Amino acid sequence: MKDIQILAFDVFGTVVDWYGSVVREATLSPLNLSAETAGDFALAWRDGYQPAMQRVRSGELGWTRIDDLHRLILEDILPRFGLDHLGEPEREHLNSVWHRLDPWPDASPGLTALRNRFRVCTLSNGNLSLLADLARHGDLPWDLILSAEVFKHYKPDPQTYLGVAEVFAVKPSQVMLVAAHKDDLRAAAACGLRTAYIERPFEFGPDGVKSGRKDLSRSPDLDFHARDFLDLATQLECTP
Amino acid sequence: MKDIQILAFDVFGTVVDWYGSVVREATLSPLNLSAETAGDFALAWRDGYQPAMQRVRSGELGWTRIDDLHRLILEDILPRFGLDHLGEPEREHLNSVWHRLDPWPDASPGLTALRNRFRVCTLSNGNLSLLADLARHGDLPWDLILSAEVFKHYKPDPQTYLGVAEVFAVKPSQVMLVAAHKDDLRAAAACGLRTAYIERPFEFGPDGVKSGRKDLSRSPDLDFHARDFLDLATQLECTP
Repeated sequence: MKDIQILAFDVFGTVVDWYGSVVREATLSPLNLSAETAGDFALAWRDGYQPAMQRVRSGELGWTRIDDLHRLILEDILPRFGLDHLGEPEREHLNSVWHRLDPWPDASPGLTALRNRFRVCTLSNGNLSLLADLARHGDLPWDLILSAEVFKHYKPDPQTYLGVAEVFAVKPSQVMLVAAHKDDLRAAAACGLRTAYIERPFEFGPDGVKSGRKDLSRSPDLDFHARDFLDLATQLECTP
Repeated sequence: MKDIQILAFDVFGTVVDWYGSVVREATLSPLNLSAETAGDFALAWRDGYQPAMQRVRSGELGWTRIDDLHRLILEDILPRFGLDHLGEPEREHLNSVWHRLDPWPDASPGLTALRNRFRVCTLSNGNLSLLADLARHGDLPWDLILSAEVFKHYKPDPQTYLGVAEVFAVKPSQVMLVAAHKDDLRAAAACGLRTAYIERPFEFGPDGVKSGRKDLSRSPDLDFHARDFLDLATQLECTP
């Protein structure tokens, strides 16, 4: 643990509450969905995320940033939710909801505490301008915003995890990925990074654990398991 | 002016005082240079900067980050200043002085004021980790740190200026480069960016203007001419 210098954070779900933020906007004008349908809408949008990135990874699409992938998925799901009537400005504004996601309540104070001991950066598939907007919106004190857009590879490609070590000129074992997703953490560990799992029980909404989308169990192959960033800061002996 | 959304800042000389910071360290142990020799040392190190980047631009060197170019130049000038006795740890620590450069006094409050109206980012030939360290050291509230390292091109290559517009998904004319160097600004203008010149009379030390290294004259081809960032904030009608 003493050797760790850089904490690299996954963002969607780990730092910010995409589900709650998308649901909130979907219940308002011009979408006006019911709370239950808004939840399905948020999950459907997010469900398109991995397949869309896979189209880039496979080479079917050239390099495409997340803003544009989010828009492709949105076009795909709008008819299913009876939202064909939305015009271009409404669609564009709706798509930019991913730039306005609220942080989890512990994110800003937790990062501030962790930053007393480590350099903290993002390692997200979100594009740079999206991550910059989230940082401003959520008062997130990143030392550096790193993105798949810098490496022109999406996680879990190794170029992303190894890219963080390269940027900071440290060994992979001196970088720890912090994420609410075990597949992300395991791909990082395979590149030699350390790993910290954050629970985020409501990432997929109130029924996430019950529905099996969210697995909060302790996994002995991961280096740390924390409830949230403040808990991680305590475990890493960072003073708030 | 109403159309400008992004302010992109050159860093060395524009945001931070490389001359004063390098001189200060060079007068201390283990270098112990006189104030006058320390000034020559700082200028000699900086004089190697453009030729070193030109070796990358020309293809003689593959992509090489500034930390490594600074080290190459340092090795070249140490004998000239009678500093051959420095060991590897001292050389490495000395080279990292570029991560510890002090900001000009107006930099942090000026950026904070400008950020009330614009998104502010770096556009520097410095590498990402260097810029992240300068931001922490100088309390610089960047929305985003962009570097030649992201674009794998050094300024004044057009890929850097146009890259800022691309990252933020805006037109080049919606980006303004802020710099203390007219050649940098003119290369940006040739790509369609707006330009703001900052004076920084002491960039090359107290004799910079007299020696002709620094030209503070108003140039009608540049869009703005400001004494410092607070003056620029006033001209751009940003409330502090």
